[in-house]
Amino acid sequence: MKKSTDAILLVSTTDEAPNVFYASGFVAPDPVLFLKQGRRRILVVPPLEAGRARQTTRGVIVRTPRQLPCEEGEARSLSGWALALLRAERLKKVTVSPGCPVRVVRALEAAGIRVAVAEVAIFPERERKTPIEIEHLREAQRAAVAAMRRAIACLRESRIGPRGQLRWKGQLLTSERLRFEIQCALLERQCHAPETIVAGGRQGADPHERGSGPLCAGEPIVLDIFPRHQRTGYWGDITRTVVKGEPKPEVRRMYRAVKEAQAAALRMLRPGVTGDAVHRQVQDVLLARGFETGERNGVPFGFFHGTGHGVGLDIHEGPRLSLRGGPLRVGHVVTVEPGLYDPEWGGMRIEDTVVITRRGYEPLATMAKPLCL
Amino acid sequence: MKKSTDAILLVSTTDEAPNVFYASGFVAPDPVLFLKQGRRRILVVPPLEAGRARQTTRGVIVRTPRQLPCEEGEARSLSGWALALLRAERLKKVTVSPGCPVRVVRALEAAGIRVAVAEVAIFPERERKTPIEIEHLREAQRAAVAAMRRAIACLRESRIGPRGQLRWKGQLLTSERLRFEIQCALLERQCHAPETIVAGGRQGADPHERGSGPLCAGEPIVLDIFPRHQRTGYWGDITRTVVKGEPKPEVRRMYRAVKEAQAAALRMLRPGVTGDAVHRQVQDVLLARGFETGERNGVPFGFFHGTGHGVGLDIHEGPRLSLRGGPLRVGHVVTVEPGLYDPEWGGMRIEDTVVITRRGYEPLATMAKPLCL
Repeated sequence: MKKSTDAILLVSTTDEAPNVFYASGFVAPDPVLFLKQGRRRILVVPPLEAGRARQTTRGVIVRTPRQLPCEEGEARSLSGWALALLRAERLKKVTVSPGCPVRVVRALEAAGIRVAVAEVAIFPERERKTPIEIEHLREAQRAAVAAMRRAIACLRESRIGPRGQLRWKGQLLTSERLRFEIQCALLERQCHAPETIVAGGRQGADPHERGSGPLCAGEPIVLDIFPRHQRTGYWGDITRTVVKGEPKPEVRRMYRAVKEAQAAALRMLRPGVTGDAVHRQVQDVLLARGFETGERNGVPFGFFHGTGHGVGLDIHEGPRLSLRGGPLRVGHVVTVEPGLYDPEWGGMRIEDTVVITRRGYEPLATMAKPLCL
Repeated sequence: MKKSTDAILLVSTTDEAPNVFYASGFVAPDPVLFLKQGRRRILVVPPLEAGRARQTTRGVIVRTPRQLPCEEGEARSLSGWALALLRAERLKKVTVSPGCPVRVVRALEAAGIRVAVAEVAIFPERERKTPIEIEHLREAQRAAVAAMRRAIACLRESRIGPRGQLRWKGQLLTSERLRFEIQCALLERQCHAPETIVAGGRQGADPHERGSGPLCAGEPIVLDIFPRHQRTGYWGDITRTVVKGEPKPEVRRMYRAVKEAQAAALRMLRPGVTGDAVHRQVQDVLLARGFETGERNGVPFGFFHGTGHGVGLDIHEGPRLSLRGGPLRVGHVVTVEPGLYDPEWGGMRIEDTVVITRRGYEPLATMAKPLCL
């Protein structure tokens, strides 16, 4: 992709923190500024961060507001830092990210600086992972798999109590309890995943419902684990859907369709194939298996999300395996996660995360995809 | 405070997610829009979030992009949603938060809409907590205290091995190991705190250093635990600094000074007192105890951060106990956390979180402040 030699200003209060980390190596708990002009990279941090910033970055000029030509009051606000920084660098125009806080942009414009908003990703190269990044992603994915194994072991060990409610270690096995076990397994691997989904029965029909209350036999339980590694900042992502005891025939059909759709999508993965084509293939398989997508009483059913997304320093990033997904490249790391949802039956989703290689793809970690426990 | 009757538009991709939750009750994993016009409140969410949005909000109109008069291509971007929403509401001007993504603002302006950027907090009322919010904060703070007790118990149980390195359960006791214990204790209480600080010795001289490697006897260990409750979204915040074995006289002096400074600050807390006055008092006590603040070779030492900050749905929010801190009010929840830092000795910080009451203040949870373990 074409690279701009314009000066790019990033403000890490926004969703840009991963970009700042990517470009500088600095983890910013407080807002910082990052300016990139060709190879010149400047990080502006509060005084108390300066030491850590110098230690954890390489080839980056670290400045505190005191070291900038701040005018009256400017040292006190991020907008003021930005003004002083551009003054020091004699820049009259700058490109910011789409998520840049409007306050900063307005302050720059008021001082006569031309502010362009980037139309494309600031660091498109983030989509193609380096070997070190792939190792970090593998580590997070292995943690996700270990946590999934722990969850499935708990469900296997559980027994079916009155009214079909699962019991484990003498207590009701709830979504909350199982999420706790998952999170402990992740912590042991320096990962955390506060948003872990353990959604049983109808709760699973909403792909973003985290789940609560007792888990029951005979119902699909969606387990979606997406941990972030505390040291590296990279994410993993895996989903399995399981049933304790005997699933209803409809749930078995959903399972087979989703598994087949995922396999069909995986078979297509290689450099040059578009995310769009992969997504359409998944839609076709699910439809051929008799699963339509639509809305009943304003509630969606069927397959109504993308097939997958990139994973890196953000849990959702490019490329997309969806209707507007472009060609895959070596080093892309993507999830493949077809699903079926029905307010009557719940959810069924199977997800793995893979890296695109010259010959096709490799899973970052492998794990069986059982339905019945 | 004066309330605006202008329409306010919030975009939850930004730091505004807590504001959207505060105003609507909806937890948004994906970007959503929120429009407030007097009492009329509209939430625009992706189709697959609509069901959950309707269930978890009260008195809020929930719309999906499909239910808005989206023109060609608008349904695909957040900026497009915003345009269609303002069109539906026949609004020609709107106020956004300072952190609003510039992309959305530019799209609105291109369509002839006047966009003002709020100068003050969008929901200043967030600073004054309701009884329910205080209960949520107490719950998070109690979890923080429980985790702190666990950490201190580990340190007490540890023994001093070769070269002063601490050993626990037959292994080196590292920052990472102790952080794991803290995080497990938090998980048991449905809280998480990935950024927990366990910084021993000189590492503690940087207030934002999370800490790594073996913990040693005779050195101050800064334990700063700020968990977020997974169910409610509210935060807790507590810091203790402890020494296993015999501290150096200088560390004892730092401890006594910081403890006295915190006590002096707490004694001042009541409605009407300014955060500025509290902060100056802390500065005075530390200086009177012989601890100056300054910089040596570009590295700050002494007391160089604020005395405290508000805690709520954000870990750092108003009011501030710092040089620009205004008057405290009943229902403010603030940390009181004086500290001393020296590159030679490390860090010393003691922090509790309290709520301002009519008569003064109440701690959200209490805990001893031991130095030697």
